[in-house]
Amino acid sequence: MTLHNQALVDRACLIVHGPDQPGVVAAIAALLTRNKGNIMSLDQYSSDPEGGDFFQRVVFHRPGLVAAMGDLEADLAQTLEPFGMNWTLTDQSVPKRMVVLASKSDHCLLDLLWRHRRGELPVTIPMVISNHTDTAEDVRTFGVPFFHVPSQAGPDKSESEAQILKLLDGNVDFVVLARYMQVISGDFLQKVGVPVINIHHSFLPAFIGAGPYRKAKERGVKLIGATAHYVTEDLDEGPIIEQDVVRATHAHSAEDLQRRGADVERAVLSRAVAWHAEDRVIRHGNHTIVF
Amino acid sequence: MTLHNQALVDRACLIVHGPDQPGVVAAIAALLTRNKGNIMSLDQYSSDPEGGDFFQRVVFHRPGLVAAMGDLEADLAQTLEPFGMNWTLTDQSVPKRMVVLASKSDHCLLDLLWRHRRGELPVTIPMVISNHTDTAEDVRTFGVPFFHVPSQAGPDKSESEAQILKLLDGNVDFVVLARYMQVISGDFLQKVGVPVINIHHSFLPAFIGAGPYRKAKERGVKLIGATAHYVTEDLDEGPIIEQDVVRATHAHSAEDLQRRGADVERAVLSRAVAWHAEDRVIRHGNHTIVF
Amino acid sequence: MTLHNQALVDRACLIVHGPDQPGVVAAIAALLTRNKGNIMSLDQYSSDPEGGDFFQRVVFHRPGLVAAMGDLEADLAQTLEPFGMNWTLTDQSVPKRMVVLASKSDHCLLDLLWRHRRGELPVTIPMVISNHTDTAEDVRTFGVPFFHVPSQAGPDKSESEAQILKLLDGNVDFVVLARYMQVISGDFLQKVGVPVINIHHSFLPAFIGAGPYRKAKERGVKLIGATAHYVTEDLDEGPIIEQDVVRATHAHSAEDLQRRGADVERAVLSRAVAWHAEDRVIRHGNHTIVF
Amino acid sequence: MTLHNQALVDRACLIVHGPDQPGVVAAIAALLTRNKGNIMSLDQYSSDPEGGDFFQRVVFHRPGLVAAMGDLEADLAQTLEPFGMNWTLTDQSVPKRMVVLASKSDHCLLDLLWRHRRGELPVTIPMVISNHTDTAEDVRTFGVPFFHVPSQAGPDKSESEAQILKLLDGNVDFVVLARYMQVISGDFLQKVGVPVINIHHSFLPAFIGAGPYRKAKERGVKLIGATAHYVTEDLDEGPIIEQDVVRATHAHSAEDLQRRGADVERAVLSRAVAWHAEDRVIRHGNHTIVF
Repeated sequence: MTLHNQALVDRACLIVHGPDQPGVVAAIAALLTRNKGNIMSLDQYSSDPEGGDFFQRVVFHRPGLVAAMGDLEADLAQTLEPFGMNWTLTDQSVPKRMVVLASKSDHCLLDLLWRHRRGELPVTIPMVISNHTDTAEDVRTFGVPFFHVPSQAGPDKSESEAQILKLLDGNVDFVVLARYMQVISGDFLQKVGVPVINIHHSFLPAFIGAGPYRKAKERGVKLIGATAHYVTEDLDEGPIIEQDVVRATHAHSAEDLQRRGADVERAVLSRAVAWHAEDRVIRHGNHTIVF
Repeated sequence: MTLHNQALVDRACLIVHGPDQPGVVAAIAALLTRNKGNIMSLDQYSSDPEGGDFFQRVVFHRPGLVAAMGDLEADLAQTLEPFGMNWTLTDQSVPKRMVVLASKSDHCLLDLLWRHRRGELPVTIPMVISNHTDTAEDVRTFGVPFFHVPSQAGPDKSESEAQILKLLDGNVDFVVLARYMQVISGDFLQKVGVPVINIHHSFLPAFIGAGPYRKAKERGVKLIGATAHYVTEDLDEGPIIEQDVVRATHAHSAEDLQRRGADVERAVLSRAVAWHAEDRVIRHGNHTIVF
Repeated sequence: MTLHNQALVDRACLIVHGPDQPGVVAAIAALLTRNKGNIMSLDQYSSDPEGGDFFQRVVFHRPGLVAAMGDLEADLAQTLEPFGMNWTLTDQSVPKRMVVLASKSDHCLLDLLWRHRRGELPVTIPMVISNHTDTAEDVRTFGVPFFHVPSQAGPDKSESEAQILKLLDGNVDFVVLARYMQVISGDFLQKVGVPVINIHHSFLPAFIGAGPYRKAKERGVKLIGATAHYVTEDLDEGPIIEQDVVRATHAHSAEDLQRRGADVERAVLSRAVAWHAEDRVIRHGNHTIVF
Repeated sequence: MTLHNQALVDRACLIVHGPDQPGVVAAIAALLTRNKGNIMSLDQYSSDPEGGDFFQRVVFHRPGLVAAMGDLEADLAQTLEPFGMNWTLTDQSVPKRMVVLASKSDHCLLDLLWRHRRGELPVTIPMVISNHTDTAEDVRTFGVPFFHVPSQAGPDKSESEAQILKLLDGNVDFVVLARYMQVISGDFLQKVGVPVINIHHSFLPAFIGAGPYRKAKERGVKLIGATAHYVTEDLDEGPIIEQDVVRATHAHSAEDLQRRGADVERAVLSRAVAWHAEDRVIRHGNHTIVF
């Protein structure tokens, strides 16, 4: 049985994207009108006035949405087929299932759990999986199941990844790496089959390799940042969802920088997760459109 | 003869707002399709899912726009009449005529003139009017006519306002008060008949009356702000277009606060002017929708 | 028995302020040298080059600090007396005792508890007092005692305030109002005898009275802010410790504004509390010097 | 004859840095007292409580400073010698001579000239040197000499650099590269013998090589930044003075990003220049202390 968020019942989100061409906006609007959908919000973006890519997000209200989904989908398939457009239609009253992977540090994990409890994140959290046990009690305090999957020794992580995949199987719509300090294999990404969101620290300029906060301290950076992005095979190179920075001075120690970094990380990750959960983020090539 | 911005030829901006109701998006989209308009960008906002207000901004490309304006306007009038919607259609290749009123301080004025020269503001500047002569030479260096209208002594400003109105008559699409230190009368606002944009300093909390920077210093504010807004009869109470802040500390003198305030004032005013010039700002009640 | 923070053992903080005059810096530096204090950080500010006020904060290391405190205090009294300076000397290894007063909303309260557990706030938390029971379980999860003191009906709060004062008596170094929705009486302030820090929402311009977020929405503000300040008899008019803002748009509902406001409130309050706990904030007149 | 800023007459800035050790603060304070210096501001930083580096900046008022400089310097040399400290003493009423090197783009250059005219930068500007003539008229409007030194074809720039060095010889205290689009050779840096400040765009993550704004657009960055730094032989790797960012969205074209980048570049460079001119920046290893 699907859990429905009562406040969002009969509300759907339609995402359309593909090659821009005349008439597509009119076709979508007419389709919604004849299917008794009342448009509540509409965002649109074309990458280029001529021959670019078209992106649209429409949230609409449709009384009796659950019963009408089949008809809506059939009409969408037929209407958008000649335009060669991709589309997805989601019932906004069905929250996405978010599984969080964490390690020892708790700042991103707890911020997600707390915002979820406050009703700020339209998701359910079926479980938290960690390669450490440090956060187990906190997680369970929020009424969320906690699973400990220790990290396999050595470079081959296939066994521990297999354990995680088994837990996720059929239980997840997207995965969040909340300071999960293990490299994810390409094989895992293919098998998991759902979007994976990561958060990592960012600096101007970038400091590569181990000990980034120490390097940032040595170079005397004046800003500490964080980037939330979708994970691709190039670990820290996937499409960016959100970024932010805080100021730093020479008086901050490497530990201070790390602490301020933690604050901006949790803020950036929480925003990215909320936007993803509300279907506001469209991936396209190696970047995102965020409505 | 109207001056056209070649890069924007055949590009129109349609603003529609009124009571939200089903079918209006589809009606507009269909109208644009049958009038050969290709939508380049579309922003939309409804103040409430049910029974709220509807706002839409569409930029579209229409080959031969100048010749087609009459037909487009007729179709818009006929199509939107049953919905009870307000609308405006503008040819984006015709830059708005912006007249700047200034006093002694130059920071906001020069920032506008410089951004205009860099091509960042889609406007023409027929003239600058000031009640002081301090900025005359700078203004003329930018090739912009400068008129000196001294401020009338005493509370009655009707004569100097009349002089300004005479200069503006038929030459202006909107007026910018770039640190113009005279109170504008309600009579002037009615007679000028075009939007007037003002910039003023802002603080948390607000400091009313003379010497705001001194008061801000006494209270030890940690932020200095600026607000750009449309002028209404309640001088500093009109609809807000844009706001921003910069940080301050106890080490800043009242003069430092004023200098930092000047920086944020010119940045905020320039953004507000650009958005107004691009028809991105819709006034509604005492607030704005900024697309 | 006093709890000591081992990392801060033998570290003292000296605050000096009073009328600026030649020689005072040299006198303090010489005093620390002859008392075997090694200066770790020193911040200084003079409100005016001539005849202004002088403020200094010195953190120094002194092996065997506990045993030397008496001598240090005697030397300070003698050395600074001719300059007419105020001074306070604190052992930084003794954390201040912070009592939090809260009502229903948890965002500021939980942020303080989390940061305390993460070691970011050099305080102990002897108790949380609330006029509601909503947060009792959360507070106790952090191992902090929770006391429920219901708010007295009617305008006279003297009885509930007396109950709170009894709980605080001898147990507190400063009080934090973490969205405590009761007006504090001048009588309470006098009797409590320790600094009280409050957080409240702030807007440009200010909106006075009930329903500030609704009013901010109506005026279409583009920024939502928060101010942390010491409480004086004029409730929201005391010396400001810290302020910050986040951006808002027309698309935010009054509820969205309130949620974003909550985020900036908890960030601003946590910074203000940390700075107060580290003796970084000096009150002077109606403003603060923050080192 | 040296030009003096009357408001800053009799005001000196002393910078001291070296290995931290007990007694140095007292020694400096005593020195200033016996030389009739009244401390107006004092900033101090130690990189480590034990065995770190010590940095101090003192601004003091000394009636008859010009006549007393010799005695002050002799006393400083004698007093600080046993501590092994580096020090510099500057008369704040003597503005530093800043030469600006520019190319085609004017945003950073004009911002410096404006701020200088507004009295915000305590410098004189003996000349602007550019490898293009685009900004000549604007520069001369500000009453500043403009010299055109075309860039030499080919990788060897020794001849055009020699021309620039000849213009600078004896006329400059620091050089600012205001979007100067030529690589500076190590040989030039050695010969110029004064600090050189550069501004360049910055991104999270970094984009190396040509077309950074296009790459930033492709990756969909949400922040555009700028970094001002001292130039070392590793061109963009020198000690950072200041950094800042502005937000970007998918709707910004590469040109928009560049324009927003220009705004943040000019703001960051102007702050860095002002701080350097006021002796607020101390270079140490590959980073800076900014007081």
